[in-house]
Amino acid sequence: MMRLAIIGFGSVGRGVAAAIAEKSLDLEVTAVADSRSAVTDPDGLDLLAVLDAKEKTGKVGSEGVGAMDVIRDGRFDVLVEVTPTNALTGEPALGYIEAALAASKYVVTSNKGPIALKYPALAALARQHGVELRYEATVCGAIPIINALKTGLAGNRIERLYGILNGTCNYILTRMADEGLSYQQALLEARELGYAEADPTYDVKGIDPAIKLVILANTVFDMNVSLDDVSITGIDAITTDALALADEQDCTIRLIGEIIPSKRIMRVSPRLLSKDHQLVVHNTLNAVTVETDLAGDITMIGRGAGSMETASAIIGDLLFIRDHHVKRT
Amino acid sequence: MMRLAIIGFGSVGRGVAAAIAEKSLDLEVTAVADSRSAVTDPDGLDLLAVLDAKEKTGKVGSEGVGAMDVIRDGRFDVLVEVTPTNALTGEPALGYIEAALAASKYVVTSNKGPIALKYPALAALARQHGVELRYEATVCGAIPIINALKTGLAGNRIERLYGILNGTCNYILTRMADEGLSYQQALLEARELGYAEADPTYDVKGIDPAIKLVILANTVFDMNVSLDDVSITGIDAITTDALALADEQDCTIRLIGEIIPSKRIMRVSPRLLSKDHQLVVHNTLNAVTVETDLAGDITMIGRGAGSMETASAIIGDLLFIRDHHVKRT
Repeated sequence: MMRLAIIGFGSVGRGVAAAIAEKSLDLEVTAVADSRSAVTDPDGLDLLAVLDAKEKTGKVGSEGVGAMDVIRDGRFDVLVEVTPTNALTGEPALGYIEAALAASKYVVTSNKGPIALKYPALAALARQHGVELRYEATVCGAIPIINALKTGLAGNRIERLYGILNGTCNYILTRMADEGLSYQQALLEARELGYAEADPTYDVKGIDPAIKLVILANTVFDMNVSLDDVSITGIDAITTDALALADEQDCTIRLIGEIIPSKRIMRVSPRLLSKDHQLVVHNTLNAVTVETDLAGDITMIGRGAGSMETASAIIGDLLFIRDHHVKRT
Repeated sequence: MMRLAIIGFGSVGRGVAAAIAEKSLDLEVTAVADSRSAVTDPDGLDLLAVLDAKEKTGKVGSEGVGAMDVIRDGRFDVLVEVTPTNALTGEPALGYIEAALAASKYVVTSNKGPIALKYPALAALARQHGVELRYEATVCGAIPIINALKTGLAGNRIERLYGILNGTCNYILTRMADEGLSYQQALLEARELGYAEADPTYDVKGIDPAIKLVILANTVFDMNVSLDDVSITGIDAITTDALALADEQDCTIRLIGEIIPSKRIMRVSPRLLSKDHQLVVHNTLNAVTVETDLAGDITMIGRGAGSMETASAIIGDLLFIRDHHVKRT
């Protein structure tokens, strides 16, 4: 059975553990580490007990043991790296991923930092050690967009990719348009519902969708770019008046991320869209359209965030590795 | 380099050949057969010459040599089976696919007949011979829905799948609603544009989308069903009045195919949908929503037919085999 080490036990890590505990997936978790403790069992952990311990004590196991100890211990096949994103340095996730790949372990991550910052080097390290690095969960949550681009649509040249890559901004714009709320009112509501963080800068300034564009650009389109290459305008200057004006023309405003690979164009900006445009989705949904040479336009719509939604993407990656790479008994 | 034998050289087969000729995909075509002739070259055919011959003479090569001769000859790795669908017997495609799998050849097909009728037996035959049978092109043309269900969303339980699986019916309903055309007028227009066949029965009676449900049911949901298990109502009794009435309620009518795996429900029927429903796509587009336990609802929209769109799905399958299975030089 394929053995997993889960590094990071916030809502995503717990979501992955809960899904594995509930389903019969032929996956075994032999180690879990959170930011201050770790627990291992080479014969397979009782995940419900680990989830229970985390809920009751705030930690998964013994303090003084950490993620790097788990990785060095090495009694697993796949590292599930789900610690919080640091978009500036990628750490500590980057170090975890590098150490695991160098030890010939597969890696599945939801962490945007290391993928946006270092994908070419990490992919080379994976190849060198005969393993694979998968990261479906880093872009558009539950929507299997990376898989669609790299597998289903693999024969296509992608002319353009554009869409709504940030659910927080989409929620705020939806509420402003539907209820006439001000930006500040809608942001407050998003915070109360847990859709926006205490510091919403990354979302409302458009940095989060820009990071996702960098990930797509570097991992699917081989563009070798960084965040500095993205032209970014957020939604924090959008007024209720602007939305009312859009409404008069049967339009609305959405924050759109766009890549045109052949022109090396990458931008995030609020755009006026006709209300019946397929990308005008509501609340926290994400939606992406890819324009291709053979398949025409393909649009995918779904939830861009959430612990179980992210777990869905991670488990999809894990099952792919289970079925196509790691053959253990 | 991975060697292909293309069986069937209608619009789909020619689309595949044209895409392979144009792109650098590390794929080599060593045989092409149409309904009355075949041409082979173990060192790789000049596809532009074969396409040219087909256009000028109506055949690809020598008469008296056929698809089964190509398969018996065996100098290829993957059979690309793109002959016309026979939904009653699956033949002659079924025989070609069986012969190829039995000779340990991979198979990629766009042919709904064999997959709807015999998938479990064919998949078992493939496993027995260490190869794989892929069929993305059989459902929703360019939309990589099979890949999404079997890979990206593999960790999910699918509660329900529903959507627009037939572009011909969608075109007719769109034109009736938008222009006030009668069913007969819209059908005539669809025929003139090549969207409907001379005998449109399979499309307008809902049989084509029902066959696609059977394929999804048997290949993704392990339901072991046949066309008789699908409750089917077509669009040929829809009147302009019914669409006008729907319009008064801000709704429209679409032909929806639906599977609820846990209840073994499969049905195709015209449904009233709010105009802002995400499945209300226009003209010949297809659209599918899957309701899942982890990922929530995922919707995919794209072109459901067309030679290059179908070629996109076939080439996606071929590249998957190239990258994950056949390792030859």
